[in-house]
Amino acid sequence: MDSRRKILLDCDPGIDDAIALCLAAAHTEAFCFLGITTVAGNQTIEKVTDNALRLSEFLKLDVPVAQGARTPVIREPLTASGIHGKNGLGDVPFPRAEAEPAGENAVLFMRNKIMELPAQEKVTLIATGPLTNVGLLLKACPEVRERIQEIVIMGGACTGGNVTANAEFNIYEDPEGAAMVFLSGLPIVMCGLDVTAKCGLNREAMAFLLERDGKVSEKVGKMLQFYLDSPGYRDKETASIHDAVPFMYLLHPELFQGEKMYVQVDCSQGISRGATVCDRRSSAHGQEPPVMVLLKGDSDKFREYLLEAVFSLDEKLSE
Amino acid sequence: MDSRRKILLDCDPGIDDAIALCLAAAHTEAFCFLGITTVAGNQTIEKVTDNALRLSEFLKLDVPVAQGARTPVIREPLTASGIHGKNGLGDVPFPRAEAEPAGENAVLFMRNKIMELPAQEKVTLIATGPLTNVGLLLKACPEVRERIQEIVIMGGACTGGNVTANAEFNIYEDPEGAAMVFLSGLPIVMCGLDVTAKCGLNREAMAFLLERDGKVSEKVGKMLQFYLDSPGYRDKETASIHDAVPFMYLLHPELFQGEKMYVQVDCSQGISRGATVCDRRSSAHGQEPPVMVLLKGDSDKFREYLLEAVFSLDEKLSE
Amino acid sequence: MDSRRKILLDCDPGIDDAIALCLAAAHTEAFCFLGITTVAGNQTIEKVTDNALRLSEFLKLDVPVAQGARTPVIREPLTASGIHGKNGLGDVPFPRAEAEPAGENAVLFMRNKIMELPAQEKVTLIATGPLTNVGLLLKACPEVRERIQEIVIMGGACTGGNVTANAEFNIYEDPEGAAMVFLSGLPIVMCGLDVTAKCGLNREAMAFLLERDGKVSEKVGKMLQFYLDSPGYRDKETASIHDAVPFMYLLHPELFQGEKMYVQVDCSQGISRGATVCDRRSSAHGQEPPVMVLLKGDSDKFREYLLEAVFSLDEKLSE
Amino acid sequence: MDSRRKILLDCDPGIDDAIALCLAAAHTEAFCFLGITTVAGNQTIEKVTDNALRLSEFLKLDVPVAQGARTPVIREPLTASGIHGKNGLGDVPFPRAEAEPAGENAVLFMRNKIMELPAQEKVTLIATGPLTNVGLLLKACPEVRERIQEIVIMGGACTGGNVTANAEFNIYEDPEGAAMVFLSGLPIVMCGLDVTAKCGLNREAMAFLLERDGKVSEKVGKMLQFYLDSPGYRDKETASIHDAVPFMYLLHPELFQGEKMYVQVDCSQGISRGATVCDRRSSAHGQEPPVMVLLKGDSDKFREYLLEAVFSLDEKLSE
Repeated sequence: MDSRRKILLDCDPGIDDAIALCLAAAHTEAFCFLGITTVAGNQTIEKVTDNALRLSEFLKLDVPVAQGARTPVIREPLTASGIHGKNGLGDVPFPRAEAEPAGENAVLFMRNKIMELPAQEKVTLIATGPLTNVGLLLKACPEVRERIQEIVIMGGACTGGNVTANAEFNIYEDPEGAAMVFLSGLPIVMCGLDVTAKCGLNREAMAFLLERDGKVSEKVGKMLQFYLDSPGYRDKETASIHDAVPFMYLLHPELFQGEKMYVQVDCSQGISRGATVCDRRSSAHGQEPPVMVLLKGDSDKFREYLLEAVFSLDEKLSE
Repeated sequence: MDSRRKILLDCDPGIDDAIALCLAAAHTEAFCFLGITTVAGNQTIEKVTDNALRLSEFLKLDVPVAQGARTPVIREPLTASGIHGKNGLGDVPFPRAEAEPAGENAVLFMRNKIMELPAQEKVTLIATGPLTNVGLLLKACPEVRERIQEIVIMGGACTGGNVTANAEFNIYEDPEGAAMVFLSGLPIVMCGLDVTAKCGLNREAMAFLLERDGKVSEKVGKMLQFYLDSPGYRDKETASIHDAVPFMYLLHPELFQGEKMYVQVDCSQGISRGATVCDRRSSAHGQEPPVMVLLKGDSDKFREYLLEAVFSLDEKLSE
Repeated sequence: MDSRRKILLDCDPGIDDAIALCLAAAHTEAFCFLGITTVAGNQTIEKVTDNALRLSEFLKLDVPVAQGARTPVIREPLTASGIHGKNGLGDVPFPRAEAEPAGENAVLFMRNKIMELPAQEKVTLIATGPLTNVGLLLKACPEVRERIQEIVIMGGACTGGNVTANAEFNIYEDPEGAAMVFLSGLPIVMCGLDVTAKCGLNREAMAFLLERDGKVSEKVGKMLQFYLDSPGYRDKETASIHDAVPFMYLLHPELFQGEKMYVQVDCSQGISRGATVCDRRSSAHGQEPPVMVLLKGDSDKFREYLLEAVFSLDEKLSE
Repeated sequence: MDSRRKILLDCDPGIDDAIALCLAAAHTEAFCFLGITTVAGNQTIEKVTDNALRLSEFLKLDVPVAQGARTPVIREPLTASGIHGKNGLGDVPFPRAEAEPAGENAVLFMRNKIMELPAQEKVTLIATGPLTNVGLLLKACPEVRERIQEIVIMGGACTGGNVTANAEFNIYEDPEGAAMVFLSGLPIVMCGLDVTAKCGLNREAMAFLLERDGKVSEKVGKMLQFYLDSPGYRDKETASIHDAVPFMYLLHPELFQGEKMYVQVDCSQGISRGATVCDRRSSAHGQEPPVMVLLKGDSDKFREYLLEAVFSLDEKLSE
């Protein structure tokens, strides 16, 4: 039996989603992709779906891609095109994909991929975009619950935010979608800003990547350059590669420290909308909390392993 | 081609859901049921599913029943067992059904029933419980959108509420589910308290029903008696049969008057949570509003036609 | 002893506040003004205070004016300058006042005017602007409570709104201020949009006023013309004179019908923020509800009595 | 000229308020009390006012006490009688005071004390209870603004809460009152849970206090014992003396580290109601942030200085 983790990735590529995919594609010994689904977020649903198809082929993952939610559960979408460029990938071109999106919508696609697995196998959901699709899946198709090993999320924060004072983009984009996930009671690993903001690539890493003359290195280097030169990042030394953290955590859990907590999503229309409210009060709830909240990570090792992955991919894809 | 309306009914029986089913079952010339789905509301999901199965067989609808959401989109459920009794049907016994619930969950069941229709046919969704299933369907399976003729809802109110000062039970139970439906942009008919509170059966009708000695009349009469004797209704002359209004509207639209409006669901955590905020200001929006809000109905005709239906069913089922 | 009502008026003039003052000034047999206080609303606090001073002198009320809140209790103010013009009085000029505002802030001014009254006398508070000052007074100076006969408010609505689908301008402008008033438990008469929207002056009345050649008629006619020609009103026959309703109600209660209800102000940040949620459910609360909500008024008599007042003032002020 | 800080203390004693007053009373060389005002919080308004009077006399502060708000700005009050005992002071008896509360309500009392100061002098407001009175003062009497040097608050938290996952008791008790203060733009020092939770007295300190045989030590020791033996604290080594932090900060700022931030109070009705949302994002606002948020304190020095103060008071009051 294939001992690799069965992965369903729900994403909105996005520069850091793309780099996360590079990390995953370099570790085919660890990850077996069942499919990729897309959700509006960093860019419109059409663009992120197109990007997912392009990345899947460029990285020779060659995995089916299904398009998902065009809008959050109960409001109009935001996008983060300022940070991710017009094409969503820092305006770095990737070849047009030959494959088309799957015929099914993301929720049904995920549901079917999960239910088609042999009975004893479970899937790991990785979500690096707003949680619209994943929330709808868990709520609309409860039969998948017992087939899910864990859900590893890039999103939220225990302290501080990036869109507002206490909300992170992916959760702020669809608090109700996120609430469905956090209320599911399933095992969740939350890779929030507390740890992802410190897991990044710096200008020195960018120089390494650009001078390498590798097929993947070049793309990653240029996307990184777009990040570091964008107004939001300008004058900063390091760009956070938020979306790579879930895969790095699965590959190297020893790099990270966390704590089990109760996490609620603020679905009010007040100033804390989209905050992931983490309850550190041990006495407040009876049972073991369901969410592992990552709080610290080893930035140096993160950068080192991520660069290694990209470089190994250069070789792998030139074979 | 069968010219009858293709009906998917999403419900939480419930006394008035049961009487609504009687009305529908008496009009097989008008309605072709594709299936019934259930949602927690008036009682727990197990009880309402069991009730739907029993009613389907008792009324010889013999339509598949699929179980749906156990809880609202983002919170714990309420029930209305005080009003509907321990079994949800005013403690009036119906024979145990032979059929089992469908193997699929409500959302997937509805999706498949809709997509299996010949391409030129459309379905009418009737929802007489909280809008959890219907909201999830529209959001998770957008492919059904163009196959839906209209959605006729018992829920909401233009003025006043019954659970709180301005919220009606079905919407209050799951405002986020309802918001997904009202934000869908699909054609909606909202049968809210403005009209349903005045569409009822009185003690005189109860006497007619009970003395009739018909198989269906007896059950309806006893359920009505439970309603009229419950603390919420005691000393009242008339019990509203809210859930029968959508079917009556489809059978006899001439009994009702309404107005097209913009309707938003209050998803705040404030005092108006669950209110259906109807915008009567003509200038506030550019396009034609998507929701037909019923505002007035002919109570006498409603009662007359509803009794006729029950009596005709007595005969039909004794054949 | 002077049997006239002792009046403290809190306002934000504003065209309809100005016309309300004309009605009051014509009835010095009924009203004894202790003072006027101002609150930001229809225009900035500086402009509405200046307008109150000008109106007080122009109408020979000659009553002290104290400046009040520059901003709502917990947010930045809106203004309605589009409807009321740059000077807040439809750009109709009134002579500069000789008097200066009182040295005290509105809250302290009201408090002192109330506490200076002989022990057996009570005051009637009339509020035709946002309820910032009145709310702060009741909460900060509870000693005034037993000296208040009633509070007559122009604001709110039982059904529908004018700023949003269910919020009226004065309440929407400061929901927290309004909540302090409605939670006070003091006797309140709420003259909301249900009745004020139908109490107005039409183009025919405008013609009467303008051809009259009276000092006050001319001003009122021109302010009315500004209203009727403003984009919000254009093509309408009648302009509501909302703020005159509280005085008309005190002069002619027989023109109005209402109902005692529980009224709560929606202080959420959701879509119903600023709504006055009126609870018509008789069973929901134990005691007699504290708020008389006006629901109907005699529009014809309102117009007739209002014009009479203006014309009588023409004569009075020319003496 | 008297160079001591002019202090107005708004409080809800409360065990830690009482210990804070001991610290202040030991430092008459630093603090000149203009008055004490009370607010419902740890106990009802009657009890906390009575306690303030008793403490003022027992500690020979002999300062006027004015009673303030009975309820928060817009809702019913909570109390914390479980933690502070039936009398609010851990059921430790203090002699009945001879003085009566001032004739004026807290807001007017504070306003007058501030305005009576010579023109060049300013007052420091210290608030150790819910911010109802202080918020109302700043909003209802804006003339005091320029006479306030700073406002030092025990309340809020940058991370975590004690009543809910992210709200601290004093702010949660009256978010709207707190919002009026934080929106005032005046210089604020926020001594929140981040620092106050770690500033405490342990069982060893309790033993010192109880064996001392001093008039004040005995009372403080017994109140501390009540704290440490109460269910909320049981099995803990140390009881936080939250309310003493503002005075300690003014006496020994060198013990504390903090950061200037923008702070907003969550006034939604959602799960974050009452949270003090601290914005650490440097780029989010243009100007220098108005709130100094204390983040760290020297627990050992805090305990040492606090015990010294109590012991010196033993001697001072036995003179």
